[in-house]
Amino acid sequence: MHTAEHTALVTPQNAYGTVDILPAEMLARNEMIETIRRVYELYGFLPLNTPAIERSEVLYGSAGPEAEKSAFHVIVPDEDEHLSLRYDLTVPLARVLCQHPELPRPFRRYQVSPVYRADKPGPGRFREFTQFDLDSVGVPSEVADTEVIAAMCDTLEALDPELRYVVRMSSRGVLDLLLPFAGISRDRGPAVFRALDKIDRVGIDNVRKELMEGYRDESGALIQGIRLTIDQVERVEMFLNVQSDRREDLISALHDLFSHIEGADARIDVLARVSHQLHRLGYHDDRVVIDLSIARGLAYYTGPIYEAYLPDAPQFGSVFSGGRYDNLTQRYSDEKLPATGASIGVDRLLAALTHLRRIKTRPATAYVLITCMDQALMDDYIDMTWELRRAGIAALLYLGEEASLGKQLKYADRCAIPIAVLYGADENAHKTVIVKNLAEGKRRATAMKHRDEWLAAPAQETVHRSELIRTVLRMIGENGQ
Amino acid sequence: MHTAEHTALVTPQNAYGTVDILPAEMLARNEMIETIRRVYELYGFLPLNTPAIERSEVLYGSAGPEAEKSAFHVIVPDEDEHLSLRYDLTVPLARVLCQHPELPRPFRRYQVSPVYRADKPGPGRFREFTQFDLDSVGVPSEVADTEVIAAMCDTLEALDPELRYVVRMSSRGVLDLLLPFAGISRDRGPAVFRALDKIDRVGIDNVRKELMEGYRDESGALIQGIRLTIDQVERVEMFLNVQSDRREDLISALHDLFSHIEGADARIDVLARVSHQLHRLGYHDDRVVIDLSIARGLAYYTGPIYEAYLPDAPQFGSVFSGGRYDNLTQRYSDEKLPATGASIGVDRLLAALTHLRRIKTRPATAYVLITCMDQALMDDYIDMTWELRRAGIAALLYLGEEASLGKQLKYADRCAIPIAVLYGADENAHKTVIVKNLAEGKRRATAMKHRDEWLAAPAQETVHRSELIRTVLRMIGENGQ
Repeated sequence: MHTAEHTALVTPQNAYGTVDILPAEMLARNEMIETIRRVYELYGFLPLNTPAIERSEVLYGSAGPEAEKSAFHVIVPDEDEHLSLRYDLTVPLARVLCQHPELPRPFRRYQVSPVYRADKPGPGRFREFTQFDLDSVGVPSEVADTEVIAAMCDTLEALDPELRYVVRMSSRGVLDLLLPFAGISRDRGPAVFRALDKIDRVGIDNVRKELMEGYRDESGALIQGIRLTIDQVERVEMFLNVQSDRREDLISALHDLFSHIEGADARIDVLARVSHQLHRLGYHDDRVVIDLSIARGLAYYTGPIYEAYLPDAPQFGSVFSGGRYDNLTQRYSDEKLPATGASIGVDRLLAALTHLRRIKTRPATAYVLITCMDQALMDDYIDMTWELRRAGIAALLYLGEEASLGKQLKYADRCAIPIAVLYGADENAHKTVIVKNLAEGKRRATAMKHRDEWLAAPAQETVHRSELIRTVLRMIGENGQ
Repeated sequence: MHTAEHTALVTPQNAYGTVDILPAEMLARNEMIETIRRVYELYGFLPLNTPAIERSEVLYGSAGPEAEKSAFHVIVPDEDEHLSLRYDLTVPLARVLCQHPELPRPFRRYQVSPVYRADKPGPGRFREFTQFDLDSVGVPSEVADTEVIAAMCDTLEALDPELRYVVRMSSRGVLDLLLPFAGISRDRGPAVFRALDKIDRVGIDNVRKELMEGYRDESGALIQGIRLTIDQVERVEMFLNVQSDRREDLISALHDLFSHIEGADARIDVLARVSHQLHRLGYHDDRVVIDLSIARGLAYYTGPIYEAYLPDAPQFGSVFSGGRYDNLTQRYSDEKLPATGASIGVDRLLAALTHLRRIKTRPATAYVLITCMDQALMDDYIDMTWELRRAGIAALLYLGEEASLGKQLKYADRCAIPIAVLYGADENAHKTVIVKNLAEGKRRATAMKHRDEWLAAPAQETVHRSELIRTVLRMIGENGQ
């Protein structure tokens, strides 16, 4: 749709804080998304899609968009609808459920889509990024929480069976018991939980200071104190010290600690049942731990909460997280829809796996480049290209501007295409074709420590034209692809 | 991220002209996208992703966003970057190529992403819709055009081997010959071509009137005349009358018609070579035709143009279209990058295939619902659910609020889950399980013309608990799934 009318050159650049995803990363990303999708579909979840553009009122409520600092506002000239780009996939899910009472409940859906937050971008942090969400709605039973945690484990294992990961779980219901236990008033709960949530980042000593008189952090910024008493802080620490490598023991200790708090047993039992169910299914203490220090956006969650991190790449934080939120639709409807779900930051998880060198995706789709040495033989090149494709072998024909074979082979190398087909007047006369295993040539040259000579390495065969497919298939096998 | 602070209910509704895609449609859509992706990857194309948010200048050039009537403007408070949502995937591709000179050329990419146009919505026309684009860049050879047309055919056949479709192709180079042939000045070319492009919609008589004195259409609106002379219109019609079921004959007729126009043979030969190459590959006249009346957004295209339509659903127009555009990057760079490519309107093609009842995708992911008749047996239900999943059978456990078996089976029906597992105290005592083939029950009930009784239809078996997987697999086979 762009026209040829403009003459002054425009600088090609991305919008601030956004990024393109180039082919090698996209191939790994698509494979990751397909793997996650397969796990979720095995669990019977269904795909849903919602638009990126939403009414601001739907996203931010009657307080209006000015309430939200990181909103991207969307404007259509001469129209007065207040629009914004979605910042998550959960609020749109709530809207869909209220608009479509015909959707069966429980409603179990996944959605993989970009979300938008006009925050300050940083390394690996962009203003448009992709979330892969999994949610069950209309599920009062804690078995739904068990299921999400199991799906998290299965997903991470499907992505890489050797990956080390830990799912930490806790419960908003249990965390709330801390308030009566330590004699802290309800209204100070959120501040206390926010402080606890920082243990990983700032350490227990600083959290203790924050709970009391406050402190200055490394940058000199003042962290306001919450002004709990020493007694209260001691009680908070008693709670945090409820730790065990065995979930069963930790649950017993919780029962002991809160034995005098009314209603404590029922809340702890929810966590105990989730733990029991996970154990039964083989998700043992080595992969799923109860960790009372995790808190996760508490205004949102109402029951079990959980997050996964990678012990070998802790700097990426939690790559997969979620929890129970039983008030999903209260902004739009009086219907109560208990829900639980988790979200993967696709870009972050991919970055972590790439950092750990656990991404094995080939950076190309084609296995074969048909080089083009003689334009007069184009019909033959075309035949060979489609012959390969029709045999299910991804292939491409060199159609660029370089006439030299060397440059065409360099193109194959830059594109990570492992096999090249060479065919000129001689081959045509003898009904043969040269099949060159570039990947093998490279391996040999590397072994010989003459990396630059790989193009000359003799990993090639002249075979009868009718042997093209068979030879290519064998080489793909030899390359282990 | 939404909080519990709001009290007034907000009406849940979509932004004007946007739509949610519910699970049944999403499943068909995902399958369609995967099929297209497989074909494109077999052709060696690579995935690329670009952000939905672009700098307005990049999209619309120095004329600024006000030049574009259908732009969605994006605003971040206190920031002065002019941003818009992309309206296609081709302009972002041009930007990426100019920003990333390290990308190998030819660069062959596909992208499937939503695009945004603030046009008046209508039935099946939304303001956010998904395009699936395929482009080769840095390819002067017409073989790249052949390849895109072949990929279009392969894609449509992969989506449905029985689908009737026709790819119509023409060439901007050939169309341009009409101007000297008919003695029409260059500057009137675009208006003439736009008129010709309407033949399908308004008929040749009205096009003839538009080429001459103009006319009033059915709604009474005045269609301005282009004021060609009778001689000129006769020459235009001579061109349009170059028709044949055989591409070879049509090309000969073109050579004859334009034999006195300088440079005509070379331009016609490009089309002839594309036709020859397609023929060689088996894309014959039954599927690919030369149709000189197609014109397609001519400001953009520079060489071969092509579009596919479905003869059994002509009302959906062209579902797949494209052409050669050799000036892709001229807005950002002096580098010449000859390119050709095509785009699928995913939503439109899916709507057309749905209309033709050619979508066979199951509207569910799960094959089995484990009903939950007795909370005391939850551990067993959990075991069975995961046993099925670990055998690769998508299954879900009923975790909703309905206690009655009948209602749980109705849930399975609404979710299109074909098999249900029933297990209560009796089964527990006897180590058996009831497996109910709901799909078969429905077939029997339909055959008996007592549709409402399907739940009672006796398509169920009581088997030993250890026979669960085997029984379910057999029933899936019997259901032909």
